[in-house]
Amino acid sequence: MNAIADKDFLRHWDELSQFGAVPGTHGVDRQAGTAADGEQRKWFESLLTEHGFRVERDAIGNQYGLLELVPGAPYVLTGSHLDSQPTAGRFDGAYGVLASAHACLRAAAELGESGEAKYNLAVVNWFNEEGSRFKPSMMGSSVFTGKLPLETALNTADRSGVTVYEALGKLHELGDFTMPEVASYAEIHVQQGRSMEADGVTIGLVNATWGAHKLEVRVTGDQAHSGAAEMADRRDALLGAARLITAARDLVDDFAPGDLHTACGEINVYPNSPVVVASEVTLLIDLRSPHTEVLDAAFASLEKTIAEVSERDRLEIEIIGEHRWEQNPYPENGIALAREAAAELGLTHDRVMTVAGHDSTNMKDVAPTVMLFVPSVSGISHNLREYTSDKDMLAGLAHLAGVVTKLAKDGLDRE
Amino acid sequence: MNAIADKDFLRHWDELSQFGAVPGTHGVDRQAGTAADGEQRKWFESLLTEHGFRVERDAIGNQYGLLELVPGAPYVLTGSHLDSQPTAGRFDGAYGVLASAHACLRAAAELGESGEAKYNLAVVNWFNEEGSRFKPSMMGSSVFTGKLPLETALNTADRSGVTVYEALGKLHELGDFTMPEVASYAEIHVQQGRSMEADGVTIGLVNATWGAHKLEVRVTGDQAHSGAAEMADRRDALLGAARLITAARDLVDDFAPGDLHTACGEINVYPNSPVVVASEVTLLIDLRSPHTEVLDAAFASLEKTIAEVSERDRLEIEIIGEHRWEQNPYPENGIALAREAAAELGLTHDRVMTVAGHDSTNMKDVAPTVMLFVPSVSGISHNLREYTSDKDMLAGLAHLAGVVTKLAKDGLDRE
Repeated sequence: MNAIADKDFLRHWDELSQFGAVPGTHGVDRQAGTAADGEQRKWFESLLTEHGFRVERDAIGNQYGLLELVPGAPYVLTGSHLDSQPTAGRFDGAYGVLASAHACLRAAAELGESGEAKYNLAVVNWFNEEGSRFKPSMMGSSVFTGKLPLETALNTADRSGVTVYEALGKLHELGDFTMPEVASYAEIHVQQGRSMEADGVTIGLVNATWGAHKLEVRVTGDQAHSGAAEMADRRDALLGAARLITAARDLVDDFAPGDLHTACGEINVYPNSPVVVASEVTLLIDLRSPHTEVLDAAFASLEKTIAEVSERDRLEIEIIGEHRWEQNPYPENGIALAREAAAELGLTHDRVMTVAGHDSTNMKDVAPTVMLFVPSVSGISHNLREYTSDKDMLAGLAHLAGVVTKLAKDGLDRE
Repeated sequence: MNAIADKDFLRHWDELSQFGAVPGTHGVDRQAGTAADGEQRKWFESLLTEHGFRVERDAIGNQYGLLELVPGAPYVLTGSHLDSQPTAGRFDGAYGVLASAHACLRAAAELGESGEAKYNLAVVNWFNEEGSRFKPSMMGSSVFTGKLPLETALNTADRSGVTVYEALGKLHELGDFTMPEVASYAEIHVQQGRSMEADGVTIGLVNATWGAHKLEVRVTGDQAHSGAAEMADRRDALLGAARLITAARDLVDDFAPGDLHTACGEINVYPNSPVVVASEVTLLIDLRSPHTEVLDAAFASLEKTIAEVSERDRLEIEIIGEHRWEQNPYPENGIALAREAAAELGLTHDRVMTVAGHDSTNMKDVAPTVMLFVPSVSGISHNLREYTSDKDMLAGLAHLAGVVTKLAKDGLDRE
């Protein structure tokens, strides 16, 4: 088997980047289960089939390409996700999926005929990592790892009432495949931050996920005429939500620079009519930090603001959903294996934390896992202008191929 | 012709209140051009026809019931609107339409056979006063008075892309009628404020509309990963919008109580995804005051805040739409006529300003106009719990009938 070349990767990358391309930009819009997602899946299936993979899909639409080197042996699984946020970059997730397919081919070429392989190889395109159309994010890997019931995922509807089951069914992307035993998992992704670029590091050895406290908040007021109602009579839910959004941002300044990230990305307002004071607003507030004590203090401060706003603006404010996790490490033996692969290739590398969640965050709870980063220019992400150079993409591919080869040859113990 | 009785009005009122009724409440949801609006229009047509009106509709779906007393003479027109905000009260607009129909019947009974009528009588149900589904508000009366081109109105789409033309066409509510000359216009409405209730006044003689400065503001930032992007790198459009919403509210406290009303009722966020910093938000901000100098000062202060937020949060903030008017009087001779009618009936009455706009705000620019209020309990409006007692509705009906009778008999000069 001949190794697949860098130029093949770049050609495939250009092809992949056409799906859901946003005219006049270098970005894409291919949310999970949309037509553009369906088209890229069919393209990816053809690519895999042409290169000798057996293509399968499971009941939540995760798409697999399998290369059997050792009949009956467990698999080294590697992948990421092809779906994107609305009007987003072409690298986020997609780079990892395509690099994984090429890494498998390279590892197979190296190991296939030597008899050195201990495990089989598979690439995966996880369904709906982004969670923009169907919540929650990381849906495919959450179902795979047993964290989210399949039925719940399939019945999840988008804003227009279309369910995951309907969207995937329409694309003929529902299957009944069950992935065989996974010996280990590897994923490569763009950093979505700018520390690696600033530090001149090509390969990020991801050693932990930041802690986070994610809140869904419901603010309840009372509908009123937004002109005629006396100000003192109003119970304006959108006003209360606005106060929480600004308070969440201003919280950041209470801590050392870089210790706390906060955001509200989504808000839903009822009735959202020009002349009506809103009666109900739900919003998502994220607090993220590597430090437990920072998350604790930030959350306590936000709770205090909630109580103040509730009293001052005569609103009912409830936290109706909450998800908290602490800084969460990746296995040290995986980092050591990845460091060795980077050193062999002469690539600069360093330990780096991820603020964003990835499918590997799920996978590391069920299999020995290696998580890798390549740099994002200026840290721009979830943006049409997201960019990673060809040079960095190819370095990452070479590195991932080295990691996958080691995983397939030597394996990785459960820590 | 026998006068129609109070009990008939209350029976018809109960029937009308069933259209778009929100289960478990006394409110309704019958936005312009929806199925519920279509149903109430058919019911109203039947009611009018049964009582001897000729029913017509014009090219923007305004619905008219005509009673010809003096062949060829101009018309006293009276009405309001049947459409509602989402999950709103059953009185707003609808009371005025039904009271107008009954007032015409009473006036016709009094004048019809005596030969005292100088003018004919007509009731109107203006299309889309609320503007919640199709913007702008007061659409039907704006087209009628030549303030909004018919084509613009018909091509206006709701959030799902359905145009006014399509919505009205589907309901068979588009016609080609042209209303004959209007000698004068009268409208009765619930106050949507609480001053009349507080002052013990049954009939409000509306003498002016508050001034207003309505702004559509666009805040432009840049999409980013709401977790991973460094805080200092973010340009968060939703954060900027939230700062403007809180600033608009806090402005009120810079002026004497009751001198300034402010609100943001509608906001649209892109991409509105859980893990994406918003790149674009549009929001509507209203400033309302009876005083020109207050509007001037409030707007100047808001402009200052816009500049500050723009700089501080690195956002582009533009006012992309603006509509300003000063306190706008209703004609004094109409107030005098209405005062006389109230005195004859022994009803408590007083001059009162309207903060909300009404179709009469349009009509008073083209015809001698009388605008009347009955009390709203606790000033609650645009709310399922909006309430006006039967007693006040019947007093308002008696008064409107008196006003319409005077208008038909004596006319009202253009001031």
